[in-house]
Amino acid sequence: VDIAITLYDGFTALDAVGPYEVLGRLPDARITFVATRPGPIRTDQASLALVAEASLAETSRPDLVLVPGGPGRLAGEGHDELVEWLRRVDAITTWTTSVCTGALFLAAAGLLTGRSATTHWSAREELAAYGAAVSEQRVVRDGKYVTAAGVSAGIDMALTLAGILSGDRTAQAIQLGIEYDPQPPYRAGSPVTAPPEIVDFLRARAVNQASGTASAPM
Amino acid sequence: VDIAITLYDGFTALDAVGPYEVLGRLPDARITFVATRPGPIRTDQASLALVAEASLAETSRPDLVLVPGGPGRLAGEGHDELVEWLRRVDAITTWTTSVCTGALFLAAAGLLTGRSATTHWSAREELAAYGAAVSEQRVVRDGKYVTAAGVSAGIDMALTLAGILSGDRTAQAIQLGIEYDPQPPYRAGSPVTAPPEIVDFLRARAVNQASGTASAPM
Repeated sequence: VDIAITLYDGFTALDAVGPYEVLGRLPDARITFVATRPGPIRTDQASLALVAEASLAETSRPDLVLVPGGPGRLAGEGHDELVEWLRRVDAITTWTTSVCTGALFLAAAGLLTGRSATTHWSAREELAAYGAAVSEQRVVRDGKYVTAAGVSAGIDMALTLAGILSGDRTAQAIQLGIEYDPQPPYRAGSPVTAPPEIVDFLRARAVNQASGTASAPM
Repeated sequence: VDIAITLYDGFTALDAVGPYEVLGRLPDARITFVATRPGPIRTDQASLALVAEASLAETSRPDLVLVPGGPGRLAGEGHDELVEWLRRVDAITTWTTSVCTGALFLAAAGLLTGRSATTHWSAREELAAYGAAVSEQRVVRDGKYVTAAGVSAGIDMALTLAGILSGDRTAQAIQLGIEYDPQPPYRAGSPVTAPPEIVDFLRARAVNQASGTASAPM
């Protein structure tokens, strides 16, 4: 499986690295980090850069594409090229996927119109405005399009894809290998379970920043 | 809070990036990725490099140190320097922490002798051999030493640290920001819950590779 994970300035690191950690352990997976131009690409927190190894132009035949989210999606530069590339490679991919607000790139490419999809909880209305049938599920599959909710949901999506691609036993071995037995110290990971004032605070922040990825601190 | 995350060739990406995603959202956190030499540092899967911004030598006063694990810990190069650096900066840190087999670096520096600590489930005996009191908890705190179990446990550790450093509300806001409402598609994330044959398979692999980080595929 040739997997391309797209990077752009201001992407959210865990959106990309969570799935990388899972999918990279699949037998025969070859993952390439791609961007409009190869080289170090800064995450949204700026203190970390991941290295893109290939340009979009030289990446023409991925089997699986994964687009991470992040506030950088609104900054603009190179995004037309990414959206155009997604539209082009989607014609030959087996799977086209996203994490968090990465779904909005797929939507902008016209790939989610009329399809079930999900995104970061604070960006659901924006995704719906593209004509997607927005779901509140954490991982949503509609044909070859698989989308995950915010940031950490990419890990769950990648394990789901691992099971589809290589079977339950391999996916379980990967889960055990990364000791993914989550025990969050709080019950605040979704707008349904988090204290309402924290939901309101982050929602206001997301709107104010138009970042589409509500973040701390409060 | 000045946070230093140490990188070395063959570290496991999610060990470092999970905590980065959480701790980087703390108010006033400054995270620096450090290594024996600055520049791109390859993860254990080789298809990804993270950029270290500073050398160990120029990083002398971190408040919090975090050491990721990974099979690269056995490859050797530069590790004496890392262990020596850990011993030195530990004298002034407020928190000294690790994820996965990163605990073995702390142990090699003599910092976990007689202390409660944890590591990747497949490396518990190795950690015990250093004189640590190995726990099967996912996140273990003993004074200023906080250790996490394998790979993905770094996210839970970082949320725990976020609560200690900045209060429960900030930690909850970060959890909601990264939509950390985990829903693994399998119940295979710990040796207690995974099918026994998968545990045996990964344990044999870990011993054969002496990697200390059992990984897929099977």
